[in-house]
Amino acid sequence: MSFVTLLDYIGIIVFVITGALVAARNENDIISFVILGAVTGIGGGTLRDMMLGQTPVFWIREPIYIYICLATSVMTFFTAHFISRYQKYILWADALGMALFSVVGAQIALGAGAPEAVAVLMGVITAIFGGIIRDTLSSNESLIMRKEIYATASFAGALTYVALEHFQILPTGITLWIGVAVTFSLRGAAIIYNLRLPGYRWVRTP
Amino acid sequence: MSFVTLLDYIGIIVFVITGALVAARNENDIISFVILGAVTGIGGGTLRDMMLGQTPVFWIREPIYIYICLATSVMTFFTAHFISRYQKYILWADALGMALFSVVGAQIALGAGAPEAVAVLMGVITAIFGGIIRDTLSSNESLIMRKEIYATASFAGALTYVALEHFQILPTGITLWIGVAVTFSLRGAAIIYNLRLPGYRWVRTP
Amino acid sequence: MSFVTLLDYIGIIVFVITGALVAARNENDIISFVILGAVTGIGGGTLRDMMLGQTPVFWIREPIYIYICLATSVMTFFTAHFISRYQKYILWADALGMALFSVVGAQIALGAGAPEAVAVLMGVITAIFGGIIRDTLSSNESLIMRKEIYATASFAGALTYVALEHFQILPTGITLWIGVAVTFSLRGAAIIYNLRLPGYRWVRTP
Repeated sequence: MSFVTLLDYIGIIVFVITGALVAARNENDIISFVILGAVTGIGGGTLRDMMLGQTPVFWIREPIYIYICLATSVMTFFTAHFISRYQKYILWADALGMALFSVVGAQIALGAGAPEAVAVLMGVITAIFGGIIRDTLSSNESLIMRKEIYATASFAGALTYVALEHFQILPTGITLWIGVAVTFSLRGAAIIYNLRLPGYRWVRTP
Repeated sequence: MSFVTLLDYIGIIVFVITGALVAARNENDIISFVILGAVTGIGGGTLRDMMLGQTPVFWIREPIYIYICLATSVMTFFTAHFISRYQKYILWADALGMALFSVVGAQIALGAGAPEAVAVLMGVITAIFGGIIRDTLSSNESLIMRKEIYATASFAGALTYVALEHFQILPTGITLWIGVAVTFSLRGAAIIYNLRLPGYRWVRTP
Repeated sequence: MSFVTLLDYIGIIVFVITGALVAARNENDIISFVILGAVTGIGGGTLRDMMLGQTPVFWIREPIYIYICLATSVMTFFTAHFISRYQKYILWADALGMALFSVVGAQIALGAGAPEAVAVLMGVITAIFGGIIRDTLSSNESLIMRKEIYATASFAGALTYVALEHFQILPTGITLWIGVAVTFSLRGAAIIYNLRLPGYRWVRTP
């Protein structure tokens, strides 16, 4: 198992948990846990593969991803009460998953021969669209509309990784980690200090 | 026309009606009937084909599906008042459409060479995502978040069908019907007895 | 640069602005402007390409589309106050963008060898799904559910264009414009006179 694959698995497990916890809060049955968990965990990567034309999409080529989603959702069904006590840690786990997906998504796009600007975008799409689908299906405010630093952190890490790969100074094993670290620390700082970028100020015309 | 194709047509007609009725309740014009009808009828199968890489998707390869959506939506526009009196039967028609799609979706995925676990999922996706898109577009609570037995029934039928195909004991013409019967009777029992699986109970920490 | 490409660029710029203005009204940061702008500008075309199997989708093959989205969104971030004063003109710009996309989408589908009925649909999908995704992500009422003439105008223009191409009476450079004119004038009339098609009247059974 390659290193990128391992990161990918960890990212998916974390995202599946955040999706399944939405089902827990809504007091749904186990099938809803699985569906919400799965769309959150593999939704972003599925969209990425469909846009790149890398079809059948990754979890059809390698069904282990399905089993990971299934096992994690079922595990969450039986332990959600315990897990959700540690809400604070989930926010950090989500930050980690998001950081991993941003870089892995960009890496997969580069591997598929996509131009570098596209690869950066694919990192962001892989990282945030699972959560966007989760929010849409559960009628929560979409993370796009929230004002915290989230997509921004994903963008920064994916850009860093692609830029470092472009200049070929460091081996990929190291650039991957630098990208992950950039996203994770930016998102982490946003969590701790409640950072946000300056927003547009809407002035109502009198 | 193969037998599976016939089941597919019937499933689509039923789903188009449920989508068009949402437009009726909202007092929309005929184009909204067509769009909501079509996304409900062919949305799940479109997503399935895009994920499998079976592109152009089925209704581009065989435009008859478009005409079925169109004719059914227009027919519903002129008869929705009549149809909606029989709301109870629509629930049953939806159960039938869902049962047909669960098995047909799994069958198409197997035919495309997908692994068996994937085929089960594709059955569920074909059966429920049209309805999920309909609910999302019309701002209704997503059927994923409702607590009735719905995706569960689809899953049971798709799983039964794929398992029976795996062991090759019975001819496909029969296993198809057994899968449909499992989903339909499970969903039917849920409608009659208002069955639901045990949901997670969220305990608020004091 | 071909003429169709130019129309396509203009359509995207207009749609990106309508998406970015949603972020402005919500007082989001610049990254949300870019994401909402981009999904609105290229969402419909992305869905079209995925369904046709024209992958990698257009903006991966030609990253200039990404730069157009980026530049337009950033420009809107700094000038939204100014732009939104001219809300009335935005409605007209959106009508223009929608007219361009309806015809360009149909033209691309014909070029990809799709049947004519499919090409008409692809025009409509290209024209309206960017806006539908924008409305869904920002929790606004979907334009499908509104009662104004919108999808209808798109449909009329795409149908006109495909029909004229079918009979080959006029050169494509002219049929394109006729299609655009049909959609634009129909949508324009709907804006000026607040036209709507007769809607279904839901009669509650006593």
